[in-house]
Amino acid sequence: MSNSSDLLHLKQQLRAFAEQRDWDQFHTPKNLSMALSGEVAEITEIFQWLTPEQSEELSVEKKQQLEEEIADVMMYLVRLADKCDIDISDACQRKLEKNNEKYPVDKCYGSAKKYNEL
Amino acid sequence: MSNSSDLLHLKQQLRAFAEQRDWDQFHTPKNLSMALSGEVAEITEIFQWLTPEQSEELSVEKKQQLEEEIADVMMYLVRLADKCDIDISDACQRKLEKNNEKYPVDKCYGSAKKYNEL
Amino acid sequence: MSNSSDLLHLKQQLRAFAEQRDWDQFHTPKNLSMALSGEVAEITEIFQWLTPEQSEELSVEKKQQLEEEIADVMMYLVRLADKCDIDISDACQRKLEKNNEKYPVDKCYGSAKKYNEL
Amino acid sequence: MSNSSDLLHLKQQLRAFAEQRDWDQFHTPKNLSMALSGEVAEITEIFQWLTPEQSEELSVEKKQQLEEEIADVMMYLVRLADKCDIDISDACQRKLEKNNEKYPVDKCYGSAKKYNEL
Repeated sequence: MSNSSDLLHLKQQLRAFAEQRDWDQFHTPKNLSMALSGEVAEITEIFQWLTPEQSEELSVEKKQQLEEEIADVMMYLVRLADKCDIDISDACQRKLEKNNEKYPVDKCYGSAKKYNEL
Repeated sequence: MSNSSDLLHLKQQLRAFAEQRDWDQFHTPKNLSMALSGEVAEITEIFQWLTPEQSEELSVEKKQQLEEEIADVMMYLVRLADKCDIDISDACQRKLEKNNEKYPVDKCYGSAKKYNEL
Repeated sequence: MSNSSDLLHLKQQLRAFAEQRDWDQFHTPKNLSMALSGEVAEITEIFQWLTPEQSEELSVEKKQQLEEEIADVMMYLVRLADKCDIDISDACQRKLEKNNEKYPVDKCYGSAKKYNEL
Repeated sequence: MSNSSDLLHLKQQLRAFAEQRDWDQFHTPKNLSMALSGEVAEITEIFQWLTPEQSEELSVEKKQQLEEEIADVMMYLVRLADKCDIDISDACQRKLEKNNEKYPVDKCYGSAKKYNEL
């Protein structure tokens, strides 16, 4: 079913978008990592003065803004992975397995400690 | 075909992962945005002293490290969107349309200027 | 009294440090901005799973870690400013004046709104 | 000569600025770390599509923008250190000594490798 994958489809759309604009020259992995960090900062900016509780109850306006920033992060992430020939889905599955080992349920239940502090 | 979606599947895996460890208490949108920015920084760190050209030819070791960091970013992004009830695929499609309007091919061909500088 | 300035002294120390190691070649403003963002992420990582209240009562160990990360940020910031021929002290004084105008006490007392939302 | 210190003076100005606006309630270390990362992102954004060479030759307009962002980063950094009772000057001196040991001139001359890769 990989042809119907959201991520694969998005990767192809973003490739076309960049090609049409001759933007591949700017999309080096280095530059894309910078653009990615810029977009993530627009997410944290939404939350910076909110309490954790307030962050769970965004206004309609803020939620819409967040939606756009999440899309921006996603698109640069997909683009970066594409440029570096990395399959995001595979990468996530591998990392999930690794995290399962690093964070065994019985050792980290209810704890926010890092694996090397457990 | 939504059942076969990579993103939906990942969202469900991450929910289960957090629930099993009682980590929902830590996963406020505010905290997730911070974790997200931390993971992105581990990506930029890979590239910071490389030239743009070198960033296109990562060593096997660096590429594997990048793959892991990309997975980390992806997973926090999916988790943040889930917590805020945002559909990432829809968000990306809407943003792509918007970008198509903001960056018309004839005005931004070969230019890295921001839309408000075009 | 500028000879006794902390910032001027630090700038000169960092110049010497880079020169001795032939690191100027890596210290382009672009690269320094990436290194800066990497160090800031190590600060946010300290706080990401803490409540705002917990963030005010760091353990001795975490406080020492924070001190080191703050130094790292400071040093890359001073280095970046030096490379771009920017006087940080002057820049701060100018920005403070600007902020005084953007955030008049009577309009923003007790409010975390951005100036364009006031 | 500490009374003439740039950093001490700035710390006091920023304290007064926050007190006058009743902003201490928002300035938890957690929140300040987020604000700090947001401002750093505005610096990286300036450089993201530039080559390393272009980053060394900013236009007057971009340089002025950079100056403002550097001031913003500096001010949040000083504020964060103040809130956590950390002396930035001391922290930098201690870190410089540590870096001198971690990066001996003969081992890292002309190399951008991290100390643990040397």
